[in-house]
Amino acid sequence: MFKLIKIKRKDLKPGEFVYVGPKRELPPVMQLFVYNENEYFEENPYLFSENIFESNHIHWLNIHGIHDVNLIKTICDKIGLHSMNVQDLLNTSERPKIEENENYLFFTTKSIIDEENIETDSEQITFVLGRNFIVSFQEKPADLFEHIRLRIRENLGIVRKKKADYLLFLLVEAIIDNYYTSIDRLARKITTLEEDLLNNPEDNLLIEIEKVKKEINYIKNKIQPLKDALVRIDKFNPEFIDSSNTPYFADLKDNTLNLLDYVEQSKNTLDGITNIYLSSLSNKMNNTMKLLTIISTIFIPLTFIAGIYGMNFQFMPELKEPLAYPIVLFVMFIIFVGMLFYFKKKKFL
Amino acid sequence: MFKLIKIKRKDLKPGEFVYVGPKRELPPVMQLFVYNENEYFEENPYLFSENIFESNHIHWLNIHGIHDVNLIKTICDKIGLHSMNVQDLLNTSERPKIEENENYLFFTTKSIIDEENIETDSEQITFVLGRNFIVSFQEKPADLFEHIRLRIRENLGIVRKKKADYLLFLLVEAIIDNYYTSIDRLARKITTLEEDLLNNPEDNLLIEIEKVKKEINYIKNKIQPLKDALVRIDKFNPEFIDSSNTPYFADLKDNTLNLLDYVEQSKNTLDGITNIYLSSLSNKMNNTMKLLTIISTIFIPLTFIAGIYGMNFQFMPELKEPLAYPIVLFVMFIIFVGMLFYFKKKKFL
Amino acid sequence: MFKLIKIKRKDLKPGEFVYVGPKRELPPVMQLFVYNENEYFEENPYLFSENIFESNHIHWLNIHGIHDVNLIKTICDKIGLHSMNVQDLLNTSERPKIEENENYLFFTTKSIIDEENIETDSEQITFVLGRNFIVSFQEKPADLFEHIRLRIRENLGIVRKKKADYLLFLLVEAIIDNYYTSIDRLARKITTLEEDLLNNPEDNLLIEIEKVKKEINYIKNKIQPLKDALVRIDKFNPEFIDSSNTPYFADLKDNTLNLLDYVEQSKNTLDGITNIYLSSLSNKMNNTMKLLTIISTIFIPLTFIAGIYGMNFQFMPELKEPLAYPIVLFVMFIIFVGMLFYFKKKKFL
Amino acid sequence: MFKLIKIKRKDLKPGEFVYVGPKRELPPVMQLFVYNENEYFEENPYLFSENIFESNHIHWLNIHGIHDVNLIKTICDKIGLHSMNVQDLLNTSERPKIEENENYLFFTTKSIIDEENIETDSEQITFVLGRNFIVSFQEKPADLFEHIRLRIRENLGIVRKKKADYLLFLLVEAIIDNYYTSIDRLARKITTLEEDLLNNPEDNLLIEIEKVKKEINYIKNKIQPLKDALVRIDKFNPEFIDSSNTPYFADLKDNTLNLLDYVEQSKNTLDGITNIYLSSLSNKMNNTMKLLTIISTIFIPLTFIAGIYGMNFQFMPELKEPLAYPIVLFVMFIIFVGMLFYFKKKKFL
Amino acid sequence: MFKLIKIKRKDLKPGEFVYVGPKRELPPVMQLFVYNENEYFEENPYLFSENIFESNHIHWLNIHGIHDVNLIKTICDKIGLHSMNVQDLLNTSERPKIEENENYLFFTTKSIIDEENIETDSEQITFVLGRNFIVSFQEKPADLFEHIRLRIRENLGIVRKKKADYLLFLLVEAIIDNYYTSIDRLARKITTLEEDLLNNPEDNLLIEIEKVKKEINYIKNKIQPLKDALVRIDKFNPEFIDSSNTPYFADLKDNTLNLLDYVEQSKNTLDGITNIYLSSLSNKMNNTMKLLTIISTIFIPLTFIAGIYGMNFQFMPELKEPLAYPIVLFVMFIIFVGMLFYFKKKKFL
Repeated sequence: MFKLIKIKRKDLKPGEFVYVGPKRELPPVMQLFVYNENEYFEENPYLFSENIFESNHIHWLNIHGIHDVNLIKTICDKIGLHSMNVQDLLNTSERPKIEENENYLFFTTKSIIDEENIETDSEQITFVLGRNFIVSFQEKPADLFEHIRLRIRENLGIVRKKKADYLLFLLVEAIIDNYYTSIDRLARKITTLEEDLLNNPEDNLLIEIEKVKKEINYIKNKIQPLKDALVRIDKFNPEFIDSSNTPYFADLKDNTLNLLDYVEQSKNTLDGITNIYLSSLSNKMNNTMKLLTIISTIFIPLTFIAGIYGMNFQFMPELKEPLAYPIVLFVMFIIFVGMLFYFKKKKFL
Repeated sequence: MFKLIKIKRKDLKPGEFVYVGPKRELPPVMQLFVYNENEYFEENPYLFSENIFESNHIHWLNIHGIHDVNLIKTICDKIGLHSMNVQDLLNTSERPKIEENENYLFFTTKSIIDEENIETDSEQITFVLGRNFIVSFQEKPADLFEHIRLRIRENLGIVRKKKADYLLFLLVEAIIDNYYTSIDRLARKITTLEEDLLNNPEDNLLIEIEKVKKEINYIKNKIQPLKDALVRIDKFNPEFIDSSNTPYFADLKDNTLNLLDYVEQSKNTLDGITNIYLSSLSNKMNNTMKLLTIISTIFIPLTFIAGIYGMNFQFMPELKEPLAYPIVLFVMFIIFVGMLFYFKKKKFL
Repeated sequence: MFKLIKIKRKDLKPGEFVYVGPKRELPPVMQLFVYNENEYFEENPYLFSENIFESNHIHWLNIHGIHDVNLIKTICDKIGLHSMNVQDLLNTSERPKIEENENYLFFTTKSIIDEENIETDSEQITFVLGRNFIVSFQEKPADLFEHIRLRIRENLGIVRKKKADYLLFLLVEAIIDNYYTSIDRLARKITTLEEDLLNNPEDNLLIEIEKVKKEINYIKNKIQPLKDALVRIDKFNPEFIDSSNTPYFADLKDNTLNLLDYVEQSKNTLDGITNIYLSSLSNKMNNTMKLLTIISTIFIPLTFIAGIYGMNFQFMPELKEPLAYPIVLFVMFIIFVGMLFYFKKKKFL
Repeated sequence: MFKLIKIKRKDLKPGEFVYVGPKRELPPVMQLFVYNENEYFEENPYLFSENIFESNHIHWLNIHGIHDVNLIKTICDKIGLHSMNVQDLLNTSERPKIEENENYLFFTTKSIIDEENIETDSEQITFVLGRNFIVSFQEKPADLFEHIRLRIRENLGIVRKKKADYLLFLLVEAIIDNYYTSIDRLARKITTLEEDLLNNPEDNLLIEIEKVKKEINYIKNKIQPLKDALVRIDKFNPEFIDSSNTPYFADLKDNTLNLLDYVEQSKNTLDGITNIYLSSLSNKMNNTMKLLTIISTIFIPLTFIAGIYGMNFQFMPELKEPLAYPIVLFVMFIIFVGMLFYFKKKKFL
Repeated sequence: MFKLIKIKRKDLKPGEFVYVGPKRELPPVMQLFVYNENEYFEENPYLFSENIFESNHIHWLNIHGIHDVNLIKTICDKIGLHSMNVQDLLNTSERPKIEENENYLFFTTKSIIDEENIETDSEQITFVLGRNFIVSFQEKPADLFEHIRLRIRENLGIVRKKKADYLLFLLVEAIIDNYYTSIDRLARKITTLEEDLLNNPEDNLLIEIEKVKKEINYIKNKIQPLKDALVRIDKFNPEFIDSSNTPYFADLKDNTLNLLDYVEQSKNTLDGITNIYLSSLSNKMNNTMKLLTIISTIFIPLTFIAGIYGMNFQFMPELKEPLAYPIVLFVMFIIFVGMLFYFKKKKFL
C-alpha cells in the first residue's frame, strides 16, 4: 500500500526528468480554461503561452497524465518551474508540501482513490499557482473537479468573480471533500467490527482490525503533511493568495484538523476493540479450563474409588458385604454433590 | 457517537447553503434582547436590523434551530458574516474554533448533552460577537442560558453594566459549566467500575471500561479545541474583547485545562482498572489450573496402582497375600499425604 | 481522591460568591503580621485596612478557613481582588496558577496533606501579593508556616530585611518542601513493593502497584501546574517580584522539576515491577502446566496398559503366562524411565 | 550494530588527534578536482594549497580513508578547520550535524552501507564547504559519488555552471538516495513477514520482526539528525549556500521527511504483525485446550461408569441382569451424544 | 538508587547551610592552581583571596568533600555566591543546571561513578566560573581531572593559553567522557542479555532486563538536564564564555545528544528483548499443552474401551468370542494410528 520510490540521480542522465509512478498507457489529456468575470473560452491547451503572466484573464491548464515527461517539461518551462519542482511533480511518491518563490506557489497533494472492496490508494495532484493562472497536474484521466468546471463554464457561484487563488481553494477543497468519503467508509467498517466483536468474535478479527488500522494510518499519512502545508498558508500568508481569501484556506485547514481528530478517535476505538477481543480470548480460555477442571476434579477421584474395588486381591473383606456396593455408591454420590457445592461456592459454576 | 459529516461542494448548488446535522422538525425559535444599563426590551427578532452596528444598546439575538437555512442566511447577511462562516455554523460536525476579522469574532463550540442512560451527545452552539451585539445559534430549543436571560431581564449582577463581550463570557461559561456535569457522571461511573472490579469482576467489565473510555475521549475531543480557542483569546487579545474582561476568559481557559486534567486522570484510572482486571483473569486461570493439577497429580498415579491390581494375570502372587490389600491401601495413603505435603511446600495449597 | 467541583453560575445568585470544598465547622482564624526591618507588631486582623498600599511596613494577613465567604469577601474588597479571583480562591478544586495585574500577583497552589495510612489529599492555599503585603488564604487551621512566623517574630534570617516577595518565596517553599515528604513516603512504598515482588508476590500486588501509581499521578497533577506557574515567574519576571529575588523563585522552579523527575522515575520503576509481576504469573502457570503434563503423560499410558489386562476376555493367552505379569511390570517401568529421560532432555524437569 | 565510541581526552596526548572507528588497512586515497564552467583539471591532491580561498575555480578534494590522522591533520590545517571539528570527523560514531562559522560550513552525515544478508552498517562522510571548495572525508575506498565525478569530468548537467554549494547538494543527495535502497530492502522483508504470518507463523517470527525493527530504528537514528541538519539549512540560510540553491536543499529535507514517514509507517505495520502473531498464539492455545477439554469431558465420566461395573463386589444385582450390559452401553452412548450436542451449542466444535 | 533529598527550611536554623548527601568521614582536600601562559604556581588554597576578580592569572580552586559546610561557606563568601547557590551545591540531590548572574556562572552536574558489579551511582560536581577563576566542588577525594592538572602543570596543550572558560570545558568534558564508560558497560550487558535470550532464557531474565532499564533511566535522568544546560549555553551565549570557545561547548552538547540517542536505542533493544521473552513464554506453554493434549486425547478413549471390557456383567457375549480380544486390540491400534495422523495434519506433531 505504502510505496516509497525515488529516482536516484546516478540512474538519471544529466538534465533528464523521469516519471516515477505506476505505468499509464493512455495519452495525457489537457484542457485550458481562460476566463474572467465577463468572458469564458476553452482554448487549445497547446497554445498555453509563456506570456500568461501579463494576461488579464485567469488561465487554468489542467493536465491528466503526468507520464508524458516531454509534454510536462514543455509546460513547466513556460511557467518557469524550478527543475526540483518539475521532478517533484513527476514523482508520485512525493510528500504533500507547499513552496513559494517570486514566480509561483507550488502545492503538491495526495487525492484518495477510494472504491469499495479495493485497498485505499492515492493519486498525486500538483498545483502551480501564479498571479493569474493555475496549472494542475493529475496522474489519471478521471478527476474530482467536474463541478468546478461546470461553475466556470456556466458562471455559477463566485468563481469567475474571483482570482486564481479562489480557484485553487476550490480544487483543494474538492480533494479534501473526497477524504471524507474514505473516512465514512472506514467508519462503517469500524462499526461492523464493533458489532462482530460482541456477536461472534472470529479468530481472524484482529487481522481485520489491523487492516483497518493500516488504512487509517495510510490516510493520516496523507492528511498530516497536507495540514502542515495549509497551516503554512494560514501562518505566512503567501503573496499569491489574497488576504481576502485566507478564510477559505483557513477553512480547509480546519477540515484537515477535523479529519485528523477523526483519525485519532478511530484509532482509539480500534484499540478499544482490540483490548476487548484479547480479553475475550482470555475469558474463553478461562471457561474452557473451568469445564475441564470441573469434570476432571469430580470424576478422577470417583474413578479412583471404583478402581480400588476393581482390584483382584483375594482378601478384601468389603467385597463380600451385601451393603458395601450401595454404601460405595452413596459415598461417591456424596463426593459428587460435595464437589458441586464447592465449585458453586468458588463461583466456578 | 462520533460522526464526521461534511457537505461536499459538488453536491451543492452554487451559492447554496446546507444544514448538516440531525433532522429537526420544530420550527426555529428566536429571541431578541436589547439592553443597556438603563433600559431593556425584548424586541421582535425579525426586526433585528442591519444598523445594529451603530446602536448604543447591546443586542442579543438568540436562535434555536439552525435547520431553517433561509432564515439563518437572512440573519447572517445582516451582520455581514463571511460565507465560509455561514456554512461552518450550519454544519453541526464543525470543530470548535475562533476566528476574528474586522467585523466580528466568530466562535463555534460544542455543548454536551448529558442525560443519564443515554450516550453522550453534543450540540453545536455558535456565537458571532460584534462590537455591540451577539448572535447565538443553537441546534435545539432547550438551552443552558435561562439564568443569563433572567439576569438581563431583572438587571441582576453586572451583565447590564458590561458590554457584549461579557455576555459572550457568560454564554460560554454556561456551556463549560455543563461539561462539569458530564465529568461528574463519568466520575461516578468510574468509581462504580472500581468497586465492581474488586467485588465481582464480570466477564464484560472490559466492555464497560471501554465504553467509559470512549465517552471520555468524546468529551476530550470537544474540550481540546475549545481550550485552543480560549488560549488564542488569552494570547492574541482580540479587539472585540475588552482587555478589562480578559480575566473572565482566562478563567474559562483555566476551566478547560482543569477539565482536561481530569480527563487525563480518568484515563489513567481506567488504565489501572484494565491492568488489574487483566491480571485477575490470569490469576483466576492460574487458580483453576492449580486445582486441576493437584487433583490429577494425586489421583492419576493412585488410579494407576489400582489398575495394576485390577489386571487379570493368573500368576500375580501379591493377590493371594492377606496383607497385600491393606499394604496397597497404606502405600496409596502415603502417596496421597506425600503429594499434599509437596503441594504445600510449593505453595500450591 | 480526585474531585472536580465547580459552582455553576446558574446555581448562583448574581454577585454571590460560594465556598466550594469539604465542609468545615471551625470558625476561620486570622493573623496579621506587620513588620519591617526595625519593628514588628501582631495586629488585630480586622484592622487590616484599605490603605495598606501606602504603608511602609510589610503586612502579612494569614487566613485559615476560607469557608466564611463574607469575611473573605470583605478582605478581598480591601485589596481590590477581581471577582474572578475571589471565586477562584473560594473554589478548592481550582488548578494551581499565577495571574498578574497592575494591583497584585495572584498565586494559587495545592499543599499536599500527607499522613501515613491516609490517602493523599491536598489543601488549596492562595496568595495575593501586593507591593508591600501578602494575604494568604488556607483551607484549614494547621499549616506549614510556623517556622516562618518564628523568623518574623524573632527577626531571624533575612526575612525582615526583605520585601513581601521574599515572604512569598518562603511560603511557597514551605509548601514545596512538604511535597518532598510525600515523595519520600511513596519511595518507601515502592521499595517495599519491589521487595514483595521478589519474595512473595501476592495475587493483589498489582492492586497495590496501581494504588501507588494513582497517588503519584495525584501528586504529579498538583506539581505540574505549580511548575508552570513558577516557570512563568522565571520567564516574565512579574513586577511584584524584585529581580534581586528571582534566584529564589528559580530555585523553587528547580525543585518542582526535581520532583517531576522523581515522579517520572517512580512511574518507570512501577512499570518495571508490573512487567515482572505479570511475567511471573506466566511463569507460575507454565510450571503448573508442566507438572500436570509430566504426571499425566507418564501415568495415563501406563494406566491404559493396566486397563488392557484388566479386560475380562476369556481368550487372552498372555494372562496365563507365568512371566506375563513381571514382563508387563518391566515394560511399564521402562516406559516410566523413558518418559523421565524425555522430560529431562526437554528441560521439563 | 549501534556502537558509541568516544576517545576520552585523558587517553589523548595534548594536541593529539585520534581516528576512532573500525580498523582500516588500506592507505588513504585522495583525488582533487579543480573546475569551473570552462576548465577542468584533476590535480595532485598533495598540491591542495592554502590559498584555495582566493582561487576562482571550484576545488573538490575527496579523501577515502580517514584513518591516516597525520594526512587528515595536514589538510584540515590548510582549510583552517577548528580542532573540535577535526576530532569530530575522525570519530566515526559522531552524530550527523551541521556547524557554520566565518570560514566554512561543516557537515557530518552517515551513509548507509546496505548489502543483502549483511547487517545494516553505516559509514561516516564529512563535508567541509568553503566559498569555492569542498573537502569530503570518507571512511572507505568505494563510494556513492561516481556519477558526480562523471558529470564534472564530462561537463554534464549544470554542476560545472554552479558553485561549490551545488556540488555539496549533489553529494548529500547521493547519500540520501542510498537510504532509499535500504528502505526498499526492509519493505520487502516486511512484506515477507506479513505473508509468513498468515501462511505458517513459526515460533521465531517475533525474533525476525524485532530484527527488522532494530534495523529500522538504526536507519531512523541516522536520518533524524540528518533531517535536523537540513532543517537548519532551510531555516537559517547559511551564507555558504547561495539562496538560489536553497530549493535543492529544501528538497533533500523533504526526502528525509519522506523517509521518516516511511519509517513510522513500517513500525506501525510491524506492531500490527506483532499483535496478530501474539493473538494467534492465544488462539492456538485456545484450540489445543478445547480439544483436550472435549475429549476429557466426554471420556472421563464414561470411564468412571465402566469403572463402577468393573468393581468386584459380590452383591451387585445389576451384573446378573441380561439387559444390564446393553442398557449401560446405551446410557454411555446417550451421554456421549449429549456431550457432543452440548459442545456444539457452546461453539466448541 | 534514585534518592531525592531536600533539607526543609523549617528544619534549618536561619542562615544555616546544611550538607545533604551520604556521610563522608575524610577531611576535605583542596588545591589551588594559579596560572597563565607563562607562569604556574600551586598555592595554599587557604590563601584563595577575595580579590581574585582583579588578578591576571587564572585561579582554579578544586575542593574535594563538600561536607565541611563552614569551609564551603567561607569560600563561597569570597566569590560572592548567592545563598541559594550555596545551598544548591551542598545538596547532592540537586538537578544539573546552569545559572548566570553578573558575577559568575553557576554550573551543577552529576558525574557517574561506574564500577563493575556495583549499582550505578553518581557524584555531584559543581563549578563556579568567574572571569578568571573556577571553583570546583566535588563530593569525593578521587576524581576525573588528573589529566587536566597534568596539562596545566606541564603546560601541555592549549589550556594555559586559554581563559578559565576553556578550563571549564575541559572539566565538563572529563565528566561527559566518563558517561561513555557507563554506556559501554551497559551495552555489553545488553548484548549478554540478547544472547541469553536465544540460548537459555531463564525465568528471571525479565528481572535482569528491568535492572538494566533502571540503570539506563538513571543515566538518562542525569544527562537530560545536563544537555538542557549545555543547550542554554549554546543558545544564550553567556558572557563568561568567550564566543571563540563556544564550539567546545557545542561539542559537549552534541556528546550529550549522542548519549541520549544511545539511551533511546538501548531502551528499544530492551523492549525488543522483553517482547521476545514474553512470547517465548507463551510458546513454551503452547508446547507443554500440546504434549498433554496429544497424550490425553489418545489414551483416554483407549482406556475407556479397556474399561468397557473390564466390566463384570455376566451377559457380555463378546467376552466369550475367541477373536474379540485381538479385534479390540486392533481397533485400539487403528484409533491410535488415526489420532497420530490427525495430530500430524493439525501440525501438532
